[in-house]
Amino acid sequence: MTYSNIPAAQTLVLYFKTKGIKNIVISPGSRNAPLTLSFSKHPDFNCFSIVDERCAGFFALGMAQQLQEPVAVVCSSGSAMLNYYPAVAEAFYSDIPLVVVSADRPQYKIDIGDGQTIRQQDIFEKHIGYSANLKQDVCHNTETYKKYAVEGQNESQESIQNHNVLEIQKALDIAFEYRTPVHINIPFEEPLYGTTTVPLVEVKKLQKTSSNAKTQVDFALLKNIWDSSSKKMVLVGVNPPDELESDIIRNLGEDDNVLVFTETTSNVHHPNFYPSIDSIIAPLEKASDKEEKFRALQPDLLVTFGGLIVSKKIKAFLRDYQPKNHWHIGGKKAYDTFFCLKEHVNIHPNDFFRQMYQQPKALEDSYRLQWDSVKQHYEKRRAEYLKQISFSDFTAFDEILKNIPRGYQVHLANSSTVRYAQLFSMNPSLHIYCNRGTSGIDGSTSTAMGAAVHHKNPTVLLTGDLSFFYDSNGLWHNYVRSDFRIILINNGGGGIFRILPGFEETKDFSTFFETQHDHSAEQLAKMYHFDYDCVKDASDLRKSLVGFYAESTAPKLLEIRTPTAVNNKILLDYFDFIS
Amino acid sequence: MTYSNIPAAQTLVLYFKTKGIKNIVISPGSRNAPLTLSFSKHPDFNCFSIVDERCAGFFALGMAQQLQEPVAVVCSSGSAMLNYYPAVAEAFYSDIPLVVVSADRPQYKIDIGDGQTIRQQDIFEKHIGYSANLKQDVCHNTETYKKYAVEGQNESQESIQNHNVLEIQKALDIAFEYRTPVHINIPFEEPLYGTTTVPLVEVKKLQKTSSNAKTQVDFALLKNIWDSSSKKMVLVGVNPPDELESDIIRNLGEDDNVLVFTETTSNVHHPNFYPSIDSIIAPLEKASDKEEKFRALQPDLLVTFGGLIVSKKIKAFLRDYQPKNHWHIGGKKAYDTFFCLKEHVNIHPNDFFRQMYQQPKALEDSYRLQWDSVKQHYEKRRAEYLKQISFSDFTAFDEILKNIPRGYQVHLANSSTVRYAQLFSMNPSLHIYCNRGTSGIDGSTSTAMGAAVHHKNPTVLLTGDLSFFYDSNGLWHNYVRSDFRIILINNGGGGIFRILPGFEETKDFSTFFETQHDHSAEQLAKMYHFDYDCVKDASDLRKSLVGFYAESTAPKLLEIRTPTAVNNKILLDYFDFIS
Repeated sequence: MTYSNIPAAQTLVLYFKTKGIKNIVISPGSRNAPLTLSFSKHPDFNCFSIVDERCAGFFALGMAQQLQEPVAVVCSSGSAMLNYYPAVAEAFYSDIPLVVVSADRPQYKIDIGDGQTIRQQDIFEKHIGYSANLKQDVCHNTETYKKYAVEGQNESQESIQNHNVLEIQKALDIAFEYRTPVHINIPFEEPLYGTTTVPLVEVKKLQKTSSNAKTQVDFALLKNIWDSSSKKMVLVGVNPPDELESDIIRNLGEDDNVLVFTETTSNVHHPNFYPSIDSIIAPLEKASDKEEKFRALQPDLLVTFGGLIVSKKIKAFLRDYQPKNHWHIGGKKAYDTFFCLKEHVNIHPNDFFRQMYQQPKALEDSYRLQWDSVKQHYEKRRAEYLKQISFSDFTAFDEILKNIPRGYQVHLANSSTVRYAQLFSMNPSLHIYCNRGTSGIDGSTSTAMGAAVHHKNPTVLLTGDLSFFYDSNGLWHNYVRSDFRIILINNGGGGIFRILPGFEETKDFSTFFETQHDHSAEQLAKMYHFDYDCVKDASDLRKSLVGFYAESTAPKLLEIRTPTAVNNKILLDYFDFIS
Repeated sequence: MTYSNIPAAQTLVLYFKTKGIKNIVISPGSRNAPLTLSFSKHPDFNCFSIVDERCAGFFALGMAQQLQEPVAVVCSSGSAMLNYYPAVAEAFYSDIPLVVVSADRPQYKIDIGDGQTIRQQDIFEKHIGYSANLKQDVCHNTETYKKYAVEGQNESQESIQNHNVLEIQKALDIAFEYRTPVHINIPFEEPLYGTTTVPLVEVKKLQKTSSNAKTQVDFALLKNIWDSSSKKMVLVGVNPPDELESDIIRNLGEDDNVLVFTETTSNVHHPNFYPSIDSIIAPLEKASDKEEKFRALQPDLLVTFGGLIVSKKIKAFLRDYQPKNHWHIGGKKAYDTFFCLKEHVNIHPNDFFRQMYQQPKALEDSYRLQWDSVKQHYEKRRAEYLKQISFSDFTAFDEILKNIPRGYQVHLANSSTVRYAQLFSMNPSLHIYCNRGTSGIDGSTSTAMGAAVHHKNPTVLLTGDLSFFYDSNGLWHNYVRSDFRIILINNGGGGIFRILPGFEETKDFSTFFETQHDHSAEQLAKMYHFDYDCVKDASDLRKSLVGFYAESTAPKLLEIRTPTAVNNKILLDYFDFIS
């Protein structure tokens, strides 16, 4: 085994191994050479090389999202690490354990005009689970250290080593236990490239993480409220597939007093659930008896679990028509999204619902049944509408979603893509993801690429043009699976702005809001060796989708050009049509 | 005139105008609509639309660098602003007044699970001149505000307005006076798109910025040391063209006791100056009487001005052979780069040197003359070397630099590019820039594009392949001048790593350090409508450069493929050859 001869670098690598971190995404640099050398030469780590740190961050995030375990990114000193910040913020709000390791200059070289040097310690402090600031070894390059170092000059190597071990352990414990991003900053002095085959560092037995005390939940009290609430709404946020057990799903689906609202990213399915929230609420907003209908929909008890909610309409509705009780189940934190949160029940949703369905109490009123007809109505009207409208984003999404093969991992870009997808039914076998922590357009492609690496099934990314071009560097690496598929819905700009209230057909609008462009993905596909096809109407789209998912030697990119000027009208008219 | 009907948005826009900010780079979004509407409809602002905020930040930075005045960037809420951070850090260390304006959600919507919402206040606090956190207007959407807002509920609109005016003024004063980046965060509640033609805000007369008291300098003391130091070294960092007056340059050039070391980015020229520091120092490192020669070069007095120093060799030398005195002249701060800083003389270098050359005192020893023969030697040997080596990065740079037309603005990417350029003479009429604040590879193209917009002369960007592909989105906007030129030296990866001590011809090295790739810029050139040519040898390069700078309807990109495997040897052999 070959290691860096710098003790701090060895310590980090050995404790990462002991703790069970297996995947390391490395960006090139010299300051991080002690880490790059040690990780890449160690057979227990899978190392990935990605140049653009913004992409590297999201790639690692996608991988951590799929593996449900911490994945590390490693970069050089200076502005490199700042490019991780979009992924760090997404990880923070999506509860993904991204472990950021930044190599740093020695402290005495900060703010003295050295190259590639910024104030790295605690840089992500607003959006991080823990920031570990390691110390530079004394025994490494002692002469330089003695000459210039002011602080810590008298600290022994043993004391520095102990500090570093504790800090690394603390950061990793938090990443593993709380599924949150952590940051480890590690200063190195030159020379950086020395290696040794003898470990200089003895790995001590890891202390068991002191887990939080078992959460105490007063089930009797909760069950009492649950049983007496005849209008219960369960709203599911971003949620990994196979999280909820099938008997729980059946209980919820068969309970007439429960309305389960799911989103495309909820990954739970039952025929009685309501998967298109906007198709329910948009017509109510337009109804003459709007107030009455909203009152009928207003729950007594709102139960949420999973991550953030996509639908703006449900958020606005529940803020205006608040339930008496809102409980959030599971997760490390509960957001007061509707300004009426009463309980954070910090146990798994399976355990919670199992308690609620012990000795279930029948209630006479039916909350759900009155909405079933509404759902049947919009499903019928949607089918009719699709038959009569022209080729557009709306029809393209219908066609795309119908054709995704069973079992695929589906990544949706922000923000039009995930919103459109919400309007259609998705096959329950699909595993659906979207970066809804910060809902940025900055890393959808990279996230999907990283998520695909270890997945048992193939992955398809559905993306809009702004998201796709924004993260075009997401294609720049050597880890694209040949079964990776990208479907790019290119409507020539930020089509979402045409639906928002500020829309006007002016030069200012098309320049500063829509940001119209005439770019195609053809050249990028060529550059990064994707098979490429481009379609501009319904018939070509149908033809192109035949065989699109068939085995191939190269990954594929299908670009769909939709008509900019009609897309927004067709979408807005849809809500009128189903009303 | 059309303004947003939100008072805080109007306030910001009107005070920006009053203070004299003219250029605004806007990224698309809905939350920033009140600002986008107000800026884009106002005839006194030049607005630019750039989708990728990382590029937008550097584009604005390039523009501010050229205009020597603050330029603003404006983005939506959420992770958008995090993508500005690399440019903010570069601006912070390069003293460029980048004004970051981030639209935010109302405070009560932070951390409650709303989309595109992060903790925006003070996000850049480690690298910013000032963070202004504006308050949301009471009178705007009062119902929502009353319902949910907890903090500041009782604050009057007048008090909020006063706070906002003071904060905006403070931020802008600091940007103008200290040439440093500032951040203004401004929360908006929906509706966001309302406009009015009547200003709701009265712009008060701006108070005069309280300038720092005149710096007191003890010239007598300094002059005494100056006159008695027979070995004076003047080392010029990153410095704009035409900064030093010609009589000062003449005085310095003709003074036998002064050795003026300049860099490519110093933009000062005299036949007696030493423009290739590494060509002086590298041979000394190899000399058998190294210690003696370094002692001969060691200055008594070191005077620096300008920004950061590129040459690692001069930094290492001056740290090991420290002068008795190091004075830094001008600038808002002085870095103790060589750990021996004695004085920060906070006046303009012209004023400082004028004092030093009043009644100049002749000294017998000559410090400079002994090095003139060394300089003549390496210049002669360099010419000989160029005749005998094969086509490579080294010969390509020689050819490129010889052919840049007089008066051009030249942007150099990090890091090989600027280091190679340092080895050659540059025509004094060229204006040369490089992002040396953080020395990142993340925004060279965008910076050059922004710097070109208002420049009287055309611009050429010299860049390596990693920098170029990293910032490929820098090509994605509508403000590329047809006389813009890019010369891409593509050696198939991070060639610089082949020169560093860790080089080894292994798979690990080529993957994780050099990050080898086979990409060409051809497709990107096509996508972004650049005329494109690619050359692979000396003869084709010479031919391609004929006419490359001629007037054209489209900008041009010239890609030079150099041989990966020989570049490093040719560079390292050069230093042996001139020794």
